[in-house]
Amino acid sequence: MAEFTLGKLAEAVGGVVQPESAATTPIRGINTLGEAEPGQVSVCGDKSYFAALSSTRAAAAFVPRKLTGAIATTLPALALPLVVVDELDPAINRVLQLFAPPIPRPPVGVDAFARVDATAELADGCRVGPFVTVGARAKLGARCVLHPGVVVGEDTVLGDDCELFANVVVRERCLLGKRVVIHAGSVVGSDGFGYRWDGRSHAKVPQIGTVVIGDDVEIGSCACVDRAKYSRTVIGPGTKIDNLVQIAHNVRIGAHCIITGQVGLAGSVEVGNGVVFGGQSAVRDHIKLGDGAMVAACSAVAEDVDANAVVSGLPALPHRQSLREQGALRRLPELVTQMRKLQEEVNRLKAAASVKPGDDHD
Amino acid sequence: MAEFTLGKLAEAVGGVVQPESAATTPIRGINTLGEAEPGQVSVCGDKSYFAALSSTRAAAAFVPRKLTGAIATTLPALALPLVVVDELDPAINRVLQLFAPPIPRPPVGVDAFARVDATAELADGCRVGPFVTVGARAKLGARCVLHPGVVVGEDTVLGDDCELFANVVVRERCLLGKRVVIHAGSVVGSDGFGYRWDGRSHAKVPQIGTVVIGDDVEIGSCACVDRAKYSRTVIGPGTKIDNLVQIAHNVRIGAHCIITGQVGLAGSVEVGNGVVFGGQSAVRDHIKLGDGAMVAACSAVAEDVDANAVVSGLPALPHRQSLREQGALRRLPELVTQMRKLQEEVNRLKAAASVKPGDDHD
Amino acid sequence: MAEFTLGKLAEAVGGVVQPESAATTPIRGINTLGEAEPGQVSVCGDKSYFAALSSTRAAAAFVPRKLTGAIATTLPALALPLVVVDELDPAINRVLQLFAPPIPRPPVGVDAFARVDATAELADGCRVGPFVTVGARAKLGARCVLHPGVVVGEDTVLGDDCELFANVVVRERCLLGKRVVIHAGSVVGSDGFGYRWDGRSHAKVPQIGTVVIGDDVEIGSCACVDRAKYSRTVIGPGTKIDNLVQIAHNVRIGAHCIITGQVGLAGSVEVGNGVVFGGQSAVRDHIKLGDGAMVAACSAVAEDVDANAVVSGLPALPHRQSLREQGALRRLPELVTQMRKLQEEVNRLKAAASVKPGDDHD
Repeated sequence: MAEFTLGKLAEAVGGVVQPESAATTPIRGINTLGEAEPGQVSVCGDKSYFAALSSTRAAAAFVPRKLTGAIATTLPALALPLVVVDELDPAINRVLQLFAPPIPRPPVGVDAFARVDATAELADGCRVGPFVTVGARAKLGARCVLHPGVVVGEDTVLGDDCELFANVVVRERCLLGKRVVIHAGSVVGSDGFGYRWDGRSHAKVPQIGTVVIGDDVEIGSCACVDRAKYSRTVIGPGTKIDNLVQIAHNVRIGAHCIITGQVGLAGSVEVGNGVVFGGQSAVRDHIKLGDGAMVAACSAVAEDVDANAVVSGLPALPHRQSLREQGALRRLPELVTQMRKLQEEVNRLKAAASVKPGDDHD
Repeated sequence: MAEFTLGKLAEAVGGVVQPESAATTPIRGINTLGEAEPGQVSVCGDKSYFAALSSTRAAAAFVPRKLTGAIATTLPALALPLVVVDELDPAINRVLQLFAPPIPRPPVGVDAFARVDATAELADGCRVGPFVTVGARAKLGARCVLHPGVVVGEDTVLGDDCELFANVVVRERCLLGKRVVIHAGSVVGSDGFGYRWDGRSHAKVPQIGTVVIGDDVEIGSCACVDRAKYSRTVIGPGTKIDNLVQIAHNVRIGAHCIITGQVGLAGSVEVGNGVVFGGQSAVRDHIKLGDGAMVAACSAVAEDVDANAVVSGLPALPHRQSLREQGALRRLPELVTQMRKLQEEVNRLKAAASVKPGDDHD
Repeated sequence: MAEFTLGKLAEAVGGVVQPESAATTPIRGINTLGEAEPGQVSVCGDKSYFAALSSTRAAAAFVPRKLTGAIATTLPALALPLVVVDELDPAINRVLQLFAPPIPRPPVGVDAFARVDATAELADGCRVGPFVTVGARAKLGARCVLHPGVVVGEDTVLGDDCELFANVVVRERCLLGKRVVIHAGSVVGSDGFGYRWDGRSHAKVPQIGTVVIGDDVEIGSCACVDRAKYSRTVIGPGTKIDNLVQIAHNVRIGAHCIITGQVGLAGSVEVGNGVVFGGQSAVRDHIKLGDGAMVAACSAVAEDVDANAVVSGLPALPHRQSLREQGALRRLPELVTQMRKLQEEVNRLKAAASVKPGDDHD
């Protein structure tokens, strides 16, 4: 792992070392307060970490400026050097970039144990690992990386700087933009799930379309993106997809969406730009979600969602309504009891007022 | 992609070209109205596509007969040639079959970079791609296709015309019928999830059974079918399973079921014939579902389901009851308010009637 | 498959053969009552299997002692030899162990078609199958088994007796304890899902941490365990994880947990020891679950869970509360009707009592 002085790190993130004398301390990594070893830097984001801050073995800690007052008051004797920054998250991201070890990649060239079709075209700087298969007429842009066991189908095209991790499968005739990253074990371009009952069996509906993935898309591990029945399944540029996500045939996803783990989008769903899906949420086929919509985790969307709307629940409702119903549901058992008592009171009132029997249920 | 005249396509689906003169137009593919290029045919299924129909670049469009009146009325100036068919879906399926490009497959024979055990038996016409492993005594029926990276375990038997896509794993002693298709990255025959707490640890319960898959089963990508504890996990003939589905040990699934994406069937679940599971639905272990049952998407089945019953919800209830409860839940916040007001009214009535305090809560 | 006399099996589990004369019967396997063939032993756990017990073709059946009275009464003419045991489950586990066929493994050594880096260290007895990749400086403990297509990244360390089934990927710098088993198609050490919106795009937050897996952990097929942002994603010793489970970055799981199929744990979740997750349950990021907690299937945990607490529902609540609310929800449609009628009664009472209009809603 790389080594920097604390001063260099502070400089890289526009931070200030306190005390200044600690700026020459060598730093060899970043870790949590509880697990940091001497020589590593750590992070303290809020008061809940003050106990850990006072006992850490770290060489220093990054803290946001707004926390320095509380630190001075609560931990007046703290000897730990600090790097004070305006905003913690971007500072830590920068530090992570500095310490990030390079991703191990196959060397430039084609491994002796790879099977690249003679008609495939590889631009300069591609790295093709062992046990990789590249089909006929496939095209890899410059500097593409195919880790061991990857399969790229016939006529599939990858833009420059794509990286497919181990055992990823991208089937035939798919189109990937530039800088697309797909993590290990994912599958792009399998047949959509389409059948027609012919009276005796579910007859296969041919899935002859393709998948088109925009620039800067990242897809997690063991995720599935099916090819369209005809036309294209589309994932817009900059969209990020987590592990174990299901994208069915004909789905159209806009730019810069966030699709977290185990989400399922059924066939022909249309997703606008900047839509966010919480984990394990699901969308029924042919549903449309407008730009900037948000779907809470574990929700099931069965109706179109307006732009910028937030929905939650099973079935998904506008989030405020969902919260109101959940609140009311918390009171429901009590309501049942209350209703019984109220009925008794009314019965007594009726008896007192000599309301004639039989009037009740007309 | 293949090329046909519009007349040939119409003939193949029992349709009529309007105007007849367009029958000689060459057609080189099928696409949506919005994305079709000149020379491609398209589809218009209902009025919502009329705007797209009038502006498409397609060479022609398939329309159902029942829509021709509305087209004549709404788009009297439409110059686009039409192919009028009785039923749209089967017609389109036929057109898709005609245009379906052949699936790229390894050539007949065993790739030089495949590892097929000397005791394995391959019938005529098998295609075994690079980096494939076939274990001892495994048997492949005629014309089986093993795409790159497939692993077939010892003593596993595949019927004629099976196709395992890239990186599929079928472990030892499994039995697949004829024409079984498994998409990339799926795993058949892993150990069932069985442990017994022995006082200090979860001791493994050996999973020594197997998996038996019937004819014409299709399984999606990254799906898992576990082997039985003893006896067999069974998937009946003609059943279709989508991506990322979990089939636990000892599950028995009947014929012609439809199991959509991310469904989970826990251990020893018994599923009749023709059962349909919506996406992300789940079934508790040892539950039985009768023939023709339907489970709505995202439902959690915790009790047996009668034949032909439709269930939905968390936990799953008869669908009508589920809808009724959902409807009532929509009104619950209002009900809480209403209850408070009603209590006030009753209190006033009681005061007016001089009901003695203390009578309320007996 | 192995062969034992019925007497030997009974002896192995501390059981008694009835009649004693059957002790010499040769047994060649175990199966369900309905599917057992002559020469196989079977199992009868309770009265619901008595019909199957009386008609089975099995050579004998294991029964628990507490069931013998009912068998004698209900099936007085039963000729089937029995093995009577104190507790059925451990007895069957022992029988399964005896009959378990050995798992087919590559031979000791490194396959000619494996790619093991020259700087990797393999202890004695390792079995490395074809099409396996082992990165630089990786270390495999004694007797590790890498099935075909496995990828072990640079600097990753496996303890003794680990087994990675076909096409498993463990990326760089991960640490696995002893006897860790990972089933086919799973991925350990992919990047956590972390991005920061920089005003124009979701900028990648480097995921430079690692994954640490304790001794005796078993992970199912197509499961994903992501590496930490920095520090470590941890799975404690003895924890068992089923298929298609998502473990996000920075998650900390204690010892001896049970995580069933399709569960999702979001980033930085902290799980104590002995926690049990039902299928498809999910936990929101940064949530803590105490030792011995239980999460019902399909639940969504959005708040911390106390030690030994049982939670269920969407969102997850204490299980008793959840049941009470579900019970009340079952009565809700009726409650709506009841409320309407009660309002009518009150209206009549008010009319009778000449309550002035306008008093109602103040």
